[in-house]
Amino acid sequence: MNDRVREILSWYASENPGVRTNLARMLNHGRLGGTGKMVILPVDQGFEHGPARSFAPNPAGYDPRYHFQLAIEAGCNAYAAPLGFLEAGVSDYCGDVPLILKCNNHDLLNDERDPISAVTSGVSDALRLGCVAVGFTIYPGSAERTEMYQQLRELAEEAKAAGLAVVVWSYPRGSTLSKEGETAVDVVTYAAQIAAQLGADIIKVKLPSAKVELAEAQKVYQKYEIPISTLAERVHHVVQSSFDGRRIVIFSGGTYAADEKFFEEVRAIRDGGGFGSIIGRNSFQRKKPDALKFLDTIMGIYEGSIQ
Amino acid sequence: MNDRVREILSWYASENPGVRTNLARMLNHGRLGGTGKMVILPVDQGFEHGPARSFAPNPAGYDPRYHFQLAIEAGCNAYAAPLGFLEAGVSDYCGDVPLILKCNNHDLLNDERDPISAVTSGVSDALRLGCVAVGFTIYPGSAERTEMYQQLRELAEEAKAAGLAVVVWSYPRGSTLSKEGETAVDVVTYAAQIAAQLGADIIKVKLPSAKVELAEAQKVYQKYEIPISTLAERVHHVVQSSFDGRRIVIFSGGTYAADEKFFEEVRAIRDGGGFGSIIGRNSFQRKKPDALKFLDTIMGIYEGSIQ
Amino acid sequence: MNDRVREILSWYASENPGVRTNLARMLNHGRLGGTGKMVILPVDQGFEHGPARSFAPNPAGYDPRYHFQLAIEAGCNAYAAPLGFLEAGVSDYCGDVPLILKCNNHDLLNDERDPISAVTSGVSDALRLGCVAVGFTIYPGSAERTEMYQQLRELAEEAKAAGLAVVVWSYPRGSTLSKEGETAVDVVTYAAQIAAQLGADIIKVKLPSAKVELAEAQKVYQKYEIPISTLAERVHHVVQSSFDGRRIVIFSGGTYAADEKFFEEVRAIRDGGGFGSIIGRNSFQRKKPDALKFLDTIMGIYEGSIQ
Amino acid sequence: MNDRVREILSWYASENPGVRTNLARMLNHGRLGGTGKMVILPVDQGFEHGPARSFAPNPAGYDPRYHFQLAIEAGCNAYAAPLGFLEAGVSDYCGDVPLILKCNNHDLLNDERDPISAVTSGVSDALRLGCVAVGFTIYPGSAERTEMYQQLRELAEEAKAAGLAVVVWSYPRGSTLSKEGETAVDVVTYAAQIAAQLGADIIKVKLPSAKVELAEAQKVYQKYEIPISTLAERVHHVVQSSFDGRRIVIFSGGTYAADEKFFEEVRAIRDGGGFGSIIGRNSFQRKKPDALKFLDTIMGIYEGSIQ
Amino acid sequence: MNDRVREILSWYASENPGVRTNLARMLNHGRLGGTGKMVILPVDQGFEHGPARSFAPNPAGYDPRYHFQLAIEAGCNAYAAPLGFLEAGVSDYCGDVPLILKCNNHDLLNDERDPISAVTSGVSDALRLGCVAVGFTIYPGSAERTEMYQQLRELAEEAKAAGLAVVVWSYPRGSTLSKEGETAVDVVTYAAQIAAQLGADIIKVKLPSAKVELAEAQKVYQKYEIPISTLAERVHHVVQSSFDGRRIVIFSGGTYAADEKFFEEVRAIRDGGGFGSIIGRNSFQRKKPDALKFLDTIMGIYEGSIQ
Repeated sequence: MNDRVREILSWYASENPGVRTNLARMLNHGRLGGTGKMVILPVDQGFEHGPARSFAPNPAGYDPRYHFQLAIEAGCNAYAAPLGFLEAGVSDYCGDVPLILKCNNHDLLNDERDPISAVTSGVSDALRLGCVAVGFTIYPGSAERTEMYQQLRELAEEAKAAGLAVVVWSYPRGSTLSKEGETAVDVVTYAAQIAAQLGADIIKVKLPSAKVELAEAQKVYQKYEIPISTLAERVHHVVQSSFDGRRIVIFSGGTYAADEKFFEEVRAIRDGGGFGSIIGRNSFQRKKPDALKFLDTIMGIYEGSIQ
Repeated sequence: MNDRVREILSWYASENPGVRTNLARMLNHGRLGGTGKMVILPVDQGFEHGPARSFAPNPAGYDPRYHFQLAIEAGCNAYAAPLGFLEAGVSDYCGDVPLILKCNNHDLLNDERDPISAVTSGVSDALRLGCVAVGFTIYPGSAERTEMYQQLRELAEEAKAAGLAVVVWSYPRGSTLSKEGETAVDVVTYAAQIAAQLGADIIKVKLPSAKVELAEAQKVYQKYEIPISTLAERVHHVVQSSFDGRRIVIFSGGTYAADEKFFEEVRAIRDGGGFGSIIGRNSFQRKKPDALKFLDTIMGIYEGSIQ
Repeated sequence: MNDRVREILSWYASENPGVRTNLARMLNHGRLGGTGKMVILPVDQGFEHGPARSFAPNPAGYDPRYHFQLAIEAGCNAYAAPLGFLEAGVSDYCGDVPLILKCNNHDLLNDERDPISAVTSGVSDALRLGCVAVGFTIYPGSAERTEMYQQLRELAEEAKAAGLAVVVWSYPRGSTLSKEGETAVDVVTYAAQIAAQLGADIIKVKLPSAKVELAEAQKVYQKYEIPISTLAERVHHVVQSSFDGRRIVIFSGGTYAADEKFFEEVRAIRDGGGFGSIIGRNSFQRKKPDALKFLDTIMGIYEGSIQ
Repeated sequence: MNDRVREILSWYASENPGVRTNLARMLNHGRLGGTGKMVILPVDQGFEHGPARSFAPNPAGYDPRYHFQLAIEAGCNAYAAPLGFLEAGVSDYCGDVPLILKCNNHDLLNDERDPISAVTSGVSDALRLGCVAVGFTIYPGSAERTEMYQQLRELAEEAKAAGLAVVVWSYPRGSTLSKEGETAVDVVTYAAQIAAQLGADIIKVKLPSAKVELAEAQKVYQKYEIPISTLAERVHHVVQSSFDGRRIVIFSGGTYAADEKFFEEVRAIRDGGGFGSIIGRNSFQRKKPDALKFLDTIMGIYEGSIQ
Repeated sequence: MNDRVREILSWYASENPGVRTNLARMLNHGRLGGTGKMVILPVDQGFEHGPARSFAPNPAGYDPRYHFQLAIEAGCNAYAAPLGFLEAGVSDYCGDVPLILKCNNHDLLNDERDPISAVTSGVSDALRLGCVAVGFTIYPGSAERTEMYQQLRELAEEAKAAGLAVVVWSYPRGSTLSKEGETAVDVVTYAAQIAAQLGADIIKVKLPSAKVELAEAQKVYQKYEIPISTLAERVHHVVQSSFDGRRIVIFSGGTYAADEKFFEEVRAIRDGGGFGSIIGRNSFQRKKPDALKFLDTIMGIYEGSIQ
């Protein structure tokens, strides 16, 4: 491993060597291998949003093998999906890309204001499928969050004992939060902090807006003049809120945007010290050549070969 | 161990030697080692209040290693934090300060009137991280308290069998209590008694006000003329309510106050027979030199070298 | 993965994707990655023969980190060692080379004629250390073999459920076998068959001599004129005896030989359809530059770049 | 922790922080705290040799509390004893000296040529008694060694998961070894290597003689001219055989000798790079003032204050 | 409890209060209640020697209720018997006398030279029958002792966790011991030490003779002139060997003797600092009035009312 990967792994000295090995497998894989940056392909939208909303824009994506191929050809660091998608495709791609088993899932056929995902798979599945990590979503702000935190704690304890890394999607949501509040900078940084305190090895959050949601927090942002006006500043603030940069934090691209706007966001993640992107719909909902070109640009930005 | 520590341990003769050893490790560590007094650094505010509200006043605190260093340099008896903060820092400070794993946590993204914390870690974590104790918060007064008491009971049983001490944060809160009632002297002493009855080895409560919240209690306070007019008297009453002083009770400093007012409170704790303080925001939200000077004064008061 | 690796994995279609992933990790790693050939570095001689006999020829090998470095620099497909050697080195090389945990070991301080190795580690160790496989030695011919076969069966069942591959060292030995019989061609092929029947994913045997040990076997070798006069023919016969080549069989080089003689053996393995070599003392008992050159030649022969 | 302790702990980076914390507790305790050297008081002779042979020379030692007091007053790094001795004394000395629970024991009322110790306590005992480590004896060379290695492996796995360090007494003995062979340099180094490979955190062996027992080993010692003529050279060779000095190796003083001869041995341990001594009979069989003076000299030699 | 009982319980400060409570029940029961002395009635001879040898001298003893009545009427501190005898009698005497369930037993239908008893009952039986303790026999010196020590360790751990005291019958026996050696003073004291180290709360041994069996021990007895010429001196030496008197040691009367000789032995136990007697055949093989008179004298001697 090179010096940057060694430095990142040093932050995880309390994890056993198995967890560190699986973190290294992701950090060393693909086009960004060794840079300390990551681009992960997640495809849980079939479960989360339904198949047509997810795959109609590029029907090749109905086939579970498509996403393996896309992640491999694009040189992603890892591919994350629910049980079924991994089971249906992995045998053709054993060892070709690090896999993250998304262990809980939520659907929209009953869209509660205080959601909780169902636990749909676990550590024994991850091991028998050859995964490097388990993934888990928490919804800080939901009235059900206590249950989710406890589920995560149990999953993480078992996963780490088996040498698997733990990736946490931390998405604020719930009846007490406004829609804009879900991506308010104080709320997103809080969500990152909670994931880190729960033992996440890799944290995934949404890119934060400049809005501050909570009144008590607002006072602090003003008093200490925390810089949050640019996206790069806000990314920096998220990284800082994730144990001062000693946990890997990656960002989701959110809703579909014009490519150039997306690239701007990637530059902000890079400039703010973020560790990378997790890009689902923006990649698998295009035809593969377009997706490869799109991801190639993003990786180029992270790598530094593209400004 | 000296006579005072031996006396304190004699109150815990029903605990196994492992629990007593870990109590001794805290009582004998740091500047107050051997005095029977304790100053503990707790840093769970990242989870409880969010990162910016916790660490913006002194951004060094975003780094999990900072708090280990602060606790060590100040000579605190122990450092208490949630799973993530301990995991991310302990490897650099193995054995340098007794650690308390805070096993449940609550966040403010959904601030219920009847809160319950999520169980976020447990005994196996405490053992693999080299901790001397587990910490747990109960909210007497919450409609969810029954569940919390039962969680505590299970945790404490497992922890003590493994030789770990049990530290209970007992904070009255809930829809039936007024905001002032949370620190009313009858309510705080009641909370201390509940923690003691649940098997707490160390009890942490807030400093009580002279208010008496419950009508039935008020009659008794008046009839027997229980002295509660000075803070030292109220501290004495809390200590009395914690098995007549045969359980270690420490006090939290609460919200930010002028230093001299804080020192006055410490003197009252000392004069009332309290065992010490657990000081979070008042210490880690200052620059380190200031924090060390602040804690130095407090320890001096407990030690008797400062009046 | 390329076509050859895909073909090899097709023989293991009954294993779960985790086992196949870990086989792929070995097959795709290092200089021979993707060729279907393997060179593995095993260092269990410290336990098996004692430290001075193992490491005095090249004292750098007393340090557990040395062997990781050697395996990595030489581009070996994997490194195999007992618990202590892996524990003491892995943290510096997480993810840099596939690891095989040798789960049983035998020492010579009491050298029984019917040996059985002690089970010294297991699946939970392999997982927490980030290994791709467990390794296990059986001694067909020993009066204790039944116990060993049953230990292997239990280990293999647990390992495969956790996605780990199973590597079996099958070394005939025991009071009923002559010293020459241990490497007789009928005995070595029998040992390979037993390992395969016990569920080994990768089989390691010694290179067989032209001797036929068992009288009943001799009749058959003569009647059917099984070609065993050249080493390549005997290697072919071992491969055939390992499910007609549908299990990976690799060969140990045995005691120290002149390099050219060793290369001749490697050519015979290649020409007979063997899958590679597992080379311990011949590599780690030389100074590193010599070892790298030696292994470079061997890999060149397997690769086809050297004749 | 200081730099030397930090360096030693870095060798144990695969252990969890709990194990490293307990190693630090021993390394930082007592007069040699922080030097990287250790003197441990072991008192299992009551079980191993009988009470009169053990305690008649200094009858104060019949009392289990005596040995706690001796270890504390002398400033030993740790005190090791079987279950009964720890249970009967620990309550008076909670936290005053790191404790090692000796988990197997052997008596001489039936002195087999191929001994195996009885497992007399375990991890749950060690935790409830507040110990920092478990201790276990293996007899390499005994026909029963396989069973002992497997018992150790199970104990070590459970102990390390609970954050306890593992101390292994590795004493070659058995029907195939001559009496002199038990301390032959090739045999002692082999025993140290086996303990290290089995996962020992701290290894205890006897001081080796210049004799080489095994014929195969003899060839190597002669060919490579391994220096073993002085005791310091042999100590160096033991340390080298314990993962090139990356595991803590301490030495037992063996049978009663003139003090000056004993001090000579300690100087040889120091000069050969050994980590310290474990001294039972030579300390607890004298009157306490003599024992304290004796241990004071030994610690002075290790410390460097005495030549 | 009175001062003497309090002093005795202070030696058991590492046991949980349940164990101490059950010790107190025995120490405070019957005629000797509160004196710190004990007379226990054991009736396992039906199993150990066969019914006729046991009960023909006083056929009332065939009835399991007889022994309860005898123990109650005589004012014994406890009654000890195997599963069947307790099950068949306890319902008529619930709470009338502390019960010890003898959990292993040996019969003479196959009298091996290296005996091991069968485990015939356990902690769940003891609890459902309302016992205060479990009893267990070990045969130090037997080739099977390792297995027995390990059985005892498991039983004791489970019993103490359930608050039951542990009584160990430690009877040297085995192919390497002469018949006289079984009661040699060095062997009996060794057996007492082993029981104490294994965690026995109460130790039962035979009265030792002045013979010294083991050559190595003989040297020590001579060199240090350990006084063993009188029975009281030997009792004192046994008590000393049982953690310097900090474990309760009681003595069996052995084979049938003239009453006066028996009383002499009791005086020696008293004068040597022993804690009492466990008297089976000498009591239940007489008619009840005789037995009560006999036990009355013995208790009088312990009490001091009879010289």
